[in-house]
Amino acid sequence: MYLSKLFIPLLKEIPSEAKIKSHQLMLRTGMIKQSSTGIYSWLPLGFKIMKKIEQIVREEQNKIGAQELLMPTIQSAEIWKESGRYDDYGEEMLRIKDRQGKEMLYGPTNEELITEIFRASVKSYKSLPQLLYHIQWKFRDELRPRFGVMRCKEFFMKDAYSFDVNDEEAKKSYNKMFFAYLNTFKRLGLTAIPMAADTGPIGGDLSHEFIILAETGESKIYSDKRIFDIDISKHSSEEKSIQDLRKKYDEFYAVTDDKYKKEDFEKKVKKENQLVTKGIEVGHIFYFGDKYSKPLKCSVDLKDGKKVNVKMGSYGVGVSRLVAAIIEAKFNNNIMRWPESVSPFDVAIIPSLKKNDKSNQEKAEKICSFLLKNKIDVLLDDTDEHLSAKFKKFDLIGIPYQIILGSKSSDDKFEFKEVNGKTESLSLEDIKNKLLNNRS
Amino acid sequence: MYLSKLFIPLLKEIPSEAKIKSHQLMLRTGMIKQSSTGIYSWLPLGFKIMKKIEQIVREEQNKIGAQELLMPTIQSAEIWKESGRYDDYGEEMLRIKDRQGKEMLYGPTNEELITEIFRASVKSYKSLPQLLYHIQWKFRDELRPRFGVMRCKEFFMKDAYSFDVNDEEAKKSYNKMFFAYLNTFKRLGLTAIPMAADTGPIGGDLSHEFIILAETGESKIYSDKRIFDIDISKHSSEEKSIQDLRKKYDEFYAVTDDKYKKEDFEKKVKKENQLVTKGIEVGHIFYFGDKYSKPLKCSVDLKDGKKVNVKMGSYGVGVSRLVAAIIEAKFNNNIMRWPESVSPFDVAIIPSLKKNDKSNQEKAEKICSFLLKNKIDVLLDDTDEHLSAKFKKFDLIGIPYQIILGSKSSDDKFEFKEVNGKTESLSLEDIKNKLLNNRS
Repeated sequence: MYLSKLFIPLLKEIPSEAKIKSHQLMLRTGMIKQSSTGIYSWLPLGFKIMKKIEQIVREEQNKIGAQELLMPTIQSAEIWKESGRYDDYGEEMLRIKDRQGKEMLYGPTNEELITEIFRASVKSYKSLPQLLYHIQWKFRDELRPRFGVMRCKEFFMKDAYSFDVNDEEAKKSYNKMFFAYLNTFKRLGLTAIPMAADTGPIGGDLSHEFIILAETGESKIYSDKRIFDIDISKHSSEEKSIQDLRKKYDEFYAVTDDKYKKEDFEKKVKKENQLVTKGIEVGHIFYFGDKYSKPLKCSVDLKDGKKVNVKMGSYGVGVSRLVAAIIEAKFNNNIMRWPESVSPFDVAIIPSLKKNDKSNQEKAEKICSFLLKNKIDVLLDDTDEHLSAKFKKFDLIGIPYQIILGSKSSDDKFEFKEVNGKTESLSLEDIKNKLLNNRS
Repeated sequence: MYLSKLFIPLLKEIPSEAKIKSHQLMLRTGMIKQSSTGIYSWLPLGFKIMKKIEQIVREEQNKIGAQELLMPTIQSAEIWKESGRYDDYGEEMLRIKDRQGKEMLYGPTNEELITEIFRASVKSYKSLPQLLYHIQWKFRDELRPRFGVMRCKEFFMKDAYSFDVNDEEAKKSYNKMFFAYLNTFKRLGLTAIPMAADTGPIGGDLSHEFIILAETGESKIYSDKRIFDIDISKHSSEEKSIQDLRKKYDEFYAVTDDKYKKEDFEKKVKKENQLVTKGIEVGHIFYFGDKYSKPLKCSVDLKDGKKVNVKMGSYGVGVSRLVAAIIEAKFNNNIMRWPESVSPFDVAIIPSLKKNDKSNQEKAEKICSFLLKNKIDVLLDDTDEHLSAKFKKFDLIGIPYQIILGSKSSDDKFEFKEVNGKTESLSLEDIKNKLLNNRS
């Protein structure tokens, strides 16, 4: 792809309204554009990254047997009155009257609607367990939206729901999601720690927030720092292995602000292991039993003919927020480096182009078509800017690998640079193999 | 995938509220569930089909160089006041007041918002032409929603926008989209005919509706039936070839109700070629020059320093509506057959299962894992229903190929049936090759 053809409106200055680095970077590299307070359009660069994150989230949900569906954004107020949350939810819920005066709302979450779908379809314990999820836009009418897509009004979120016949089975579903979340964040290049958390307006008695460390985070966290060393790759998706993994996490103290108790922290965590810092919430999972199935009368028949309310949990990942969270984690010293798994392109070709000498232009195009043929996604900077200006630009765009064609580039070896890493002189074949290996 | 594990709530009866066959089939096979009047949830089977359609639409947009972005569903009323459409649009626009009393709306289309994005980013003729598109949920507050997802309130739509420096260039963009649309519908197994159409609330002076024939269609159409014989596969994406293709279509009379004039029809179309019938609109393209760029002050600098308002067109495909449109076209004599390109599964395995004989179950599982290894997506009916009941069910689910394991199935040859086609006795290797060939 030629940079000059792409719709990437780069900004020269740091926009003054942006207070944190992810918001600044997203505006400067034309990833997003605000359309009204707290509501953003995703321009091609940002959109491409968000879509890659979405796909990783989806694949990890599918791996644990969750099935994808899609609920609408606009819901009737009726089921929210059935559950009792219509009044509870407050002004953050965007309330709407349609042309016939019917009370509607823009879904901020979907416990009610999924329960209503489930109760209409499933009647027997034989159909359980079930894991259902969707990835859909949500709306929360924040009084003070801030930090770009980190705390905005319209946001893209994966929410999953589990349905089980009893508490014991439900905990297994909860653990499966716990496992899927750890794998998801790992594939996104993030170390996310599950921390015991309050359940808030979702309700229930068991809940974990998945937190990544970042100084700009809104959550204050208190943990035993050894929790960061747990190696999830040693665990498989088998029930026993997942259970063991949960136990490992439970061994270490790690809580958010709401759950923090000074005396517990001091007692359970040695001084040298205490970590008090800030973090960003990227996922939140809840187990709440029959909190929704009871008022909404969602039950199944058991083997012995008795009816039981299904036991439910819900599981959220903020897909659009993750774009910003990854930037907060990976944008340091004014250099961005996207993880390979979500980078908008696999590699950038950065040639020094002169009007009276077409040799670099031709080389760049040859390299480009060779890589494209090998299914490597390339961005070629075909503008006539100076190399130094191009480098500054690519420090922000954040593609993790660069092929640089300077004034004295040779014909068979090329300057291949890993962002924040070393620069080598490599043949095109070696570059190709390196890029393909990095991907897997 | 095991049918017993899938969340596909099949209905035994034809729901009385469904008047047309697509709505009936979608409810009976658990593809959708109404959540409130004119608003639907997409359950796994329907969702999977819609996603495949979305992906084909996307690929054909990318092929002509259109770039994907994503605008939000909720917009500020301000830009709609700038264009003058806030009052024009009437009650079909879902109007919303946020918690601070600000006037917002759920976008029914996006000419204003994309123009606003464009004017903020592009200043020079050098950046033109540009084609931008997104695939996003829209809302129209229909007074009488009907026919399921065919005429509903919340719907999924691809809308693209072209930006050019003058009329001549703009017509080239229009023709590119014209070409992309024909290819899109062909890949979906549909014969869609571009017909001269009124421009309605979008405005402009050039417009085509893409119509597929269906008795349940809401559009009355008048055409020269020879227009259905035009072979688009003879045309490439080169400018000249696309132009020739447009000329071919222009040679034949084909209009919708609004544009119909009896005397034209009689004069231009011989009696034996006249076709008067009904159809379903699956796409609509518009050229409207500076209708939006002028009031919204979206201009670029020309080479000579003068400013000119960009010339724009817009291009819509109803992605969710296409699911129903394909059913209207392909569901006949109570048998559905999804085109291979959008079928929820490549093949169904339908075994006769008996409690005291596990041989068919084992065979079915062997076949299933062999096909999955070859990346063929399989649905295995592991329920204990009679074969005849299973056949009836699969007549509705519409997977185009079936492997049937009856009471006397052999060990190395299997009954392989193409829906609405012949049944053969084939080895597993032959079945695999057949399915893989069909896909390409």
